Amino acid sequence: MKSLKLVTLGGGSSYTPELVEGMILRAAEIPIREWWFVDVEEGAWKQEIVVNLARRMVAKAGLDWKIQATLDRRQALEGADFVTSQFRVGQLAARYLDETLPLSYGMIGQETNGAGGIFKAFRTIEAYKGIIADMKEICPDAWLINFTNPAGMVTEAIRNYLGWERVIGLCNIPVGQKKKASEVLGLEERKLMTRHVGLNHFHFHEVWDQEGQNRTAEVLEKLYGDAKPQLVEAVKNITNLEFPIELLRTIGQLPCDYHRYYFLEQEMLADALDQYQKGQVRAQVVQEVEEQLFELYQDPELAVKPKQLEQRGGAYYSDVACQIIQAIYQDSREELTVSTVNRGVIPYLPEHCVVEVSCLITAQGAIPLACPPTKGLVKGYLKLMKEMELATVEAAMSGDYERAMEAFALNPLIPNGQAAERLLQDLLVAHEAYLPQFAPVIADIKEKRQQYD
Amino acid sequence: MKSLKLVTLGGGSSYTPELVEGMILRAAEIPIREWWFVDVEEGAWKQEIVVNLARRMVAKAGLDWKIQATLDRRQALEGADFVTSQFRVGQLAARYLDETLPLSYGMIGQETNGAGGIFKAFRTIEAYKGIIADMKEICPDAWLINFTNPAGMVTEAIRNYLGWERVIGLCNIPVGQKKKASEVLGLEERKLMTRHVGLNHFHFHEVWDQEGQNRTAEVLEKLYGDAKPQLVEAVKNITNLEFPIELLRTIGQLPCDYHRYYFLEQEMLADALDQYQKGQVRAQVVQEVEEQLFELYQDPELAVKPKQLEQRGGAYYSDVACQIIQAIYQDSREELTVSTVNRGVIPYLPEHCVVEVSCLITAQGAIPLACPPTKGLVKGYLKLMKEMELATVEAAMSGDYERAMEAFALNPLIPNGQAAERLLQDLLVAHEAYLPQFAPVIADIKEKRQQYD
Amino acid sequence: MKSLKLVTLGGGSSYTPELVEGMILRAAEIPIREWWFVDVEEGAWKQEIVVNLARRMVAKAGLDWKIQATLDRRQALEGADFVTSQFRVGQLAARYLDETLPLSYGMIGQETNGAGGIFKAFRTIEAYKGIIADMKEICPDAWLINFTNPAGMVTEAIRNYLGWERVIGLCNIPVGQKKKASEVLGLEERKLMTRHVGLNHFHFHEVWDQEGQNRTAEVLEKLYGDAKPQLVEAVKNITNLEFPIELLRTIGQLPCDYHRYYFLEQEMLADALDQYQKGQVRAQVVQEVEEQLFELYQDPELAVKPKQLEQRGGAYYSDVACQIIQAIYQDSREELTVSTVNRGVIPYLPEHCVVEVSCLITAQGAIPLACPPTKGLVKGYLKLMKEMELATVEAAMSGDYERAMEAFALNPLIPNGQAAERLLQDLLVAHEAYLPQFAPVIADIKEKRQQYD
Amino acid sequence: MKSLKLVTLGGGSSYTPELVEGMILRAAEIPIREWWFVDVEEGAWKQEIVVNLARRMVAKAGLDWKIQATLDRRQALEGADFVTSQFRVGQLAARYLDETLPLSYGMIGQETNGAGGIFKAFRTIEAYKGIIADMKEICPDAWLINFTNPAGMVTEAIRNYLGWERVIGLCNIPVGQKKKASEVLGLEERKLMTRHVGLNHFHFHEVWDQEGQNRTAEVLEKLYGDAKPQLVEAVKNITNLEFPIELLRTIGQLPCDYHRYYFLEQEMLADALDQYQKGQVRAQVVQEVEEQLFELYQDPELAVKPKQLEQRGGAYYSDVACQIIQAIYQDSREELTVSTVNRGVIPYLPEHCVVEVSCLITAQGAIPLACPPTKGLVKGYLKLMKEMELATVEAAMSGDYERAMEAFALNPLIPNGQAAERLLQDLLVAHEAYLPQFAPVIADIKEKRQQYD
Repeated sequence: MKSLKLVTLGGGSSYTPELVEGMILRAAEIPIREWWFVDVEEGAWKQEIVVNLARRMVAKAGLDWKIQATLDRRQALEGADFVTSQFRVGQLAARYLDETLPLSYGMIGQETNGAGGIFKAFRTIEAYKGIIADMKEICPDAWLINFTNPAGMVTEAIRNYLGWERVIGLCNIPVGQKKKASEVLGLEERKLMTRHVGLNHFHFHEVWDQEGQNRTAEVLEKLYGDAKPQLVEAVKNITNLEFPIELLRTIGQLPCDYHRYYFLEQEMLADALDQYQKGQVRAQVVQEVEEQLFELYQDPELAVKPKQLEQRGGAYYSDVACQIIQAIYQDSREELTVSTVNRGVIPYLPEHCVVEVSCLITAQGAIPLACPPTKGLVKGYLKLMKEMELATVEAAMSGDYERAMEAFALNPLIPNGQAAERLLQDLLVAHEAYLPQFAPVIADIKEKRQQYD
Repeated sequence: MKSLKLVTLGGGSSYTPELVEGMILRAAEIPIREWWFVDVEEGAWKQEIVVNLARRMVAKAGLDWKIQATLDRRQALEGADFVTSQFRVGQLAARYLDETLPLSYGMIGQETNGAGGIFKAFRTIEAYKGIIADMKEICPDAWLINFTNPAGMVTEAIRNYLGWERVIGLCNIPVGQKKKASEVLGLEERKLMTRHVGLNHFHFHEVWDQEGQNRTAEVLEKLYGDAKPQLVEAVKNITNLEFPIELLRTIGQLPCDYHRYYFLEQEMLADALDQYQKGQVRAQVVQEVEEQLFELYQDPELAVKPKQLEQRGGAYYSDVACQIIQAIYQDSREELTVSTVNRGVIPYLPEHCVVEVSCLITAQGAIPLACPPTKGLVKGYLKLMKEMELATVEAAMSGDYERAMEAFALNPLIPNGQAAERLLQDLLVAHEAYLPQFAPVIADIKEKRQQYD
Repeated sequence: MKSLKLVTLGGGSSYTPELVEGMILRAAEIPIREWWFVDVEEGAWKQEIVVNLARRMVAKAGLDWKIQATLDRRQALEGADFVTSQFRVGQLAARYLDETLPLSYGMIGQETNGAGGIFKAFRTIEAYKGIIADMKEICPDAWLINFTNPAGMVTEAIRNYLGWERVIGLCNIPVGQKKKASEVLGLEERKLMTRHVGLNHFHFHEVWDQEGQNRTAEVLEKLYGDAKPQLVEAVKNITNLEFPIELLRTIGQLPCDYHRYYFLEQEMLADALDQYQKGQVRAQVVQEVEEQLFELYQDPELAVKPKQLEQRGGAYYSDVACQIIQAIYQDSREELTVSTVNRGVIPYLPEHCVVEVSCLITAQGAIPLACPPTKGLVKGYLKLMKEMELATVEAAMSGDYERAMEAFALNPLIPNGQAAERLLQDLLVAHEAYLPQFAPVIADIKEKRQQYD
Repeated sequence: MKSLKLVTLGGGSSYTPELVEGMILRAAEIPIREWWFVDVEEGAWKQEIVVNLARRMVAKAGLDWKIQATLDRRQALEGADFVTSQFRVGQLAARYLDETLPLSYGMIGQETNGAGGIFKAFRTIEAYKGIIADMKEICPDAWLINFTNPAGMVTEAIRNYLGWERVIGLCNIPVGQKKKASEVLGLEERKLMTRHVGLNHFHFHEVWDQEGQNRTAEVLEKLYGDAKPQLVEAVKNITNLEFPIELLRTIGQLPCDYHRYYFLEQEMLADALDQYQKGQVRAQVVQEVEEQLFELYQDPELAVKPKQLEQRGGAYYSDVACQIIQAIYQDSREELTVSTVNRGVIPYLPEHCVVEVSCLITAQGAIPLACPPTKGLVKGYLKLMKEMELATVEAAMSGDYERAMEAFALNPLIPNGQAAERLLQDLLVAHEAYLPQFAPVIADIKEKRQQYD
């Protein structure tokens, strides 16, 4: 049994202990030799804390893994078998801008879908240019498990624009949806099959049982309909407003939590503006949680993942990452929902674009399963959203201002008009430090603005 | 030379004198034998006035056409060669509801694109079920020239759902755009070629000259850019707000006036709400204009189209209708932009759906020309809008509530959420008299509402 | 655990003992209650013999299954859970005509691909019209496992033209290919994954191992290249000529045995003509084998599947059928290659047509897996072949002569020209008894022929 | 009015006098300033003769055009407005090999479709690499009118692989078909509209009249059916065998003469083998005709196009070239059938590939018209043929042996099997001098062959 070298980009993330726990639980199946954590200068102190905790966790589990922290990415990648990514370019400060600048124009400031999501993609894809160049040179056979958001667009860039084939993009939502379905139906997860179709943070799914019965309608009613016992908890990041149930019945498939932004536009905007006024946008909340977590992580007595991490949001994220590493390593052909190349399973989206669908995870990577058919409503939105994603990724790659405008104009959460362009320019200027690809565009904007001063 | 019988559905329309004038001007090329005007009971008095004016116009021109007014559609269709349609189901009262009910929810109340447009489609397509059944039986070889709005969706229904092949949908906007381009470039229209791609009220175009040069960018700057001498007049129906010029440059093709609703969402909504508060929604304005027009039409001395008709909006509409009749009759292979079956010229829309593109008009009907390539922004919107149109048409055909909800959810002018569904139900109840296909759905809504009273 | 009722159409087939053996081996997993065998009048005596043998086999295995033979299909279908089909309309006499009439024109007389295959489809699909009508009425929830050839076209007809969704078409070739790959690589089957793409009797596949390595090239060389130890045995029906190895290398995927007809046109034709002259076309050979088998089957001492059946061709056929029944019953999500609806996994074939690809077999039926990419050569042929299949199926459904001509003209094994049409007419007349859908066409042909006598 | 410079590549072609005549006839509309003829060393003597004749023709017409012959292509291209191409790489000697080597294996030796056509494409595309490189540098705004065969594949290479947009591929067959339809219907050409769909030498067409009636069936019967007065003359290159009329009726559209090779495979092969045995393959016949023509051309008294040229085949070729130059120059929007980019008008072929369809010829180039729908038979073949063309063009560009094998395996006129590969190798070796892109492949073949000697 070949032993493995893991590398984690963004080692200083507060999620790291969960990832470490996940691998410790699978130690019998996945023989790890060494595990390197990499971060950038600004994140060094956090990485130091987290990696020390990781060492204590591994030691407590009686494992002999070599745990290493470094700021030298190239050294870390040497001989890597699996690279996981969970970095955040610009830290929470950047997220704060992503969320609040749109809100200042009365627009949703969501960090994965709205204007904020587009800019998170711009920054992350720029960072990946160097990472992938290094990986091609240093560890051309490694698998890259990306869970940096917006995971769909980032995986699209890595796979189709940076040309790295061995990548899987992942998200914790599909796994959570299966757990929820299992709960409301009172059936073990292994007795159910979820079938996802769509894009990251914009997918729908069906639930089928072992008798071959489609249980979607029943789950829908129990989660969102009159039959629901209580309001279902959304993912931590998203306020828990009640879905318009008739619309869900029309779709005939289960939504993901992020669909609230699209199917409850007015309500979600009102809620976001309310949070903004209270000084409680998500970046601010997370900032506080993280400070508490790092406080805990520093405790030299702590040698397990602390319970409080679960409140951070992103539950199961690391668990899914571990599952995928195991499925590839063992060629287990497990069925999971991930971001990968379409290859026709959503016939009305481009054949080679990245989608988020049910797949078999094998030693060859993710093999998509044919998707359930979708209504015109779903088709229309998915086609629009994919064009939005492609415009975003191409703008991120090229630094082209017009392509960035296209992304904004296509995004349903950004109302078109004069304000949209002002917001685009504000965000470009605000994130200048992380957007070298847009340098000439930003210089131009700044010059014009000075003229008006 | 075979002489022709024309039939005009909606004879009592205030536009009729323009249509009559158009045919009088072409009398030498198109030998008309008789011309029947048809209307419904409520429109009989208006038709009476208009047809009398038509008789005076024809007489003054020294023509011997038989002019006939009737409420008996089947009699009129006997032996028809060309049928033109310009009827409005529910008259201006219905339009008033289409415009104001959405506004009462803070949504755009546009009668061709927004919630109003969806309901105008529902009423008109319902009326066409009977018309097409009659035509199949009585005049199976006639050509139907539809200019009842929303012309694209109505043509889609006639062609693909009611199964009538000899139909051309038309709109006055493309012809006006060519005139405008000719004006700003200082070149005769025949020296220019416009190339349209898109859907009715949602198309883009390029302008090319006889040297094979693409003059689109120049026209764009002169109409909407810094170079423009003054604000270009929009079509009469639409407030003349300034387009976001950078977005137009990004698209690289010329918009149609209705794009203001999509590219200036916030501004156009504010403007519409303002009109609403002033009691000046378009239906009210038109009502006044029409009253004045019918006053004039009754004057027994009047034997020409009065100048005031031009203020009504819809300039060139009738002229385009006449051009098309002539082009079919003479197989002139003239190049015009109309609504017809795609047949691949917009490769990313369904092969058999109805689109609005540059065509050759021949004795065989409209043959589309390959379209210029479009940006991702245009693609994304056209794909979304076509799904919206298909949902609308299928709901109109079947009376299916879920399909109607899909149309609402896809329409970019209707923000999704709890309010959208209430608006849908309000409009169904308000237009009950003209929507027999939705009778069970409406009964159900009314019953539920009573329960809550 | 719910007990099952099985029904086998074509009970008198010589394959039946293998199917019985297969189910006996799975008795612990699949609880059978009763098993009905159905045949037509002409096959009654064979069914009698075979069912008696089945009873002895079941008894010897100590099972209490109720075994029933009948000519009354409707009675048999009552309460059926699984229906398997293995009937041959017109028996071997029809096959003889399918093979020899083409040969008399110097054309390949293959019973699944060439002119013979088209006519076998015509006869079988006609028979299925009644079967599916009965099933819709009597056992609407049953699963139909079709292994009557040409399995792809027959499944296409059942699924898309007769409207029966719960059908899976199967073939023994993919299973045999995996066994062969396992043998030449010296790796257990479960450690390999074959990935099929194509149509029934016209598919290609890749072989991947548990390390995620593509072993296709290695298998190709060991089976067909210089490295091969000896000529690989083709399926029993097909002469074992050596593939043009460079062409296979170009394709980069493994062929199926039937590709010899397409990639060795001249050689296979010469061979078939040779067999024809020797009076050894396949129908004749099989006739002899069958006579010997039925001799054996009658032996009241025999209570197991006789070894000699393996020489009949079609090894594993019944085994695959049993595997599929088990996978559906247990929702085992096993990966198998079957004929089912495309749903985009071959992106260049129609979304809803039937293809033969790697699938997960679940309680919901077969869910196709995304296929490996294919070369232009494979694409070109698959597109042509699918048009041929569709023309064949539509001619079989409608009895349309022109569509039948299209099928002939598209089929690569039928050279176009005057002879092709004569052959089409000869076959129509020869099979008249089984082709009521073509009755007017055949009457017309016969009348014209009489005129010339 | 801007005066033009024309350049003709392959000036020594025997067709040149027709081209000169065509431009003389249009002298009033197209003001030519100078006309340069270019050829290679081997063709210099023929060019000398032809250009002298051209000078006499121009002088006789009283025109002051500067006529120039040169071997220096770069000098000729300086300032060019239109470049026409009619060169034959390797002269008739290469054609002789293209025709006879396949026949020696019992295969059709056709110089535009079969193995010969593939190799003509290989040689011509190789030559175009240098031509297009020169044009991009020297005359980037010139229009290239290519009538070097195989015109479809060559235009595909120029447009999509060499990246030259201003190209139109042409063929004389569509124009001849319209003349023929006009003749049999007794209607002037301008009263008819032909609508072509397909690929060069593989297209179908419909004929419509000014009343909007589809006259295709009538033309079909008069040309090929029982109603035909006498056997219609095929293009000069193709033996005039009778089409299988029922198959044409099935297609419902008119074939082109080259379809005899596909729809009369056996008959055309027999005929070709017969010509081969008599020493009368087309290259030999043309060789004789050309010798006689050049004899005539040298006559210093001759100052018009000699009648005998019409027997050469290729009638109207030059005429179509002149028509296209005029239509581009005048932006006349004339409707002609040429090879250009699909852009969706054949929806089942790739959006950007080159097809041969009815177009408007404008100053912008050719704009395709939506095509009439086609039967499954036509679809199947066109999809196959386009894959064959793409394989050929890509092999020609790259010198890739596998892609060349794919082209051979896809070509319906080359039976697959061991002989096909031997033929491919023979042709590569035979044409070595003109195929530098295949040099390593050819060296390898030669080396292997020596080993066996």
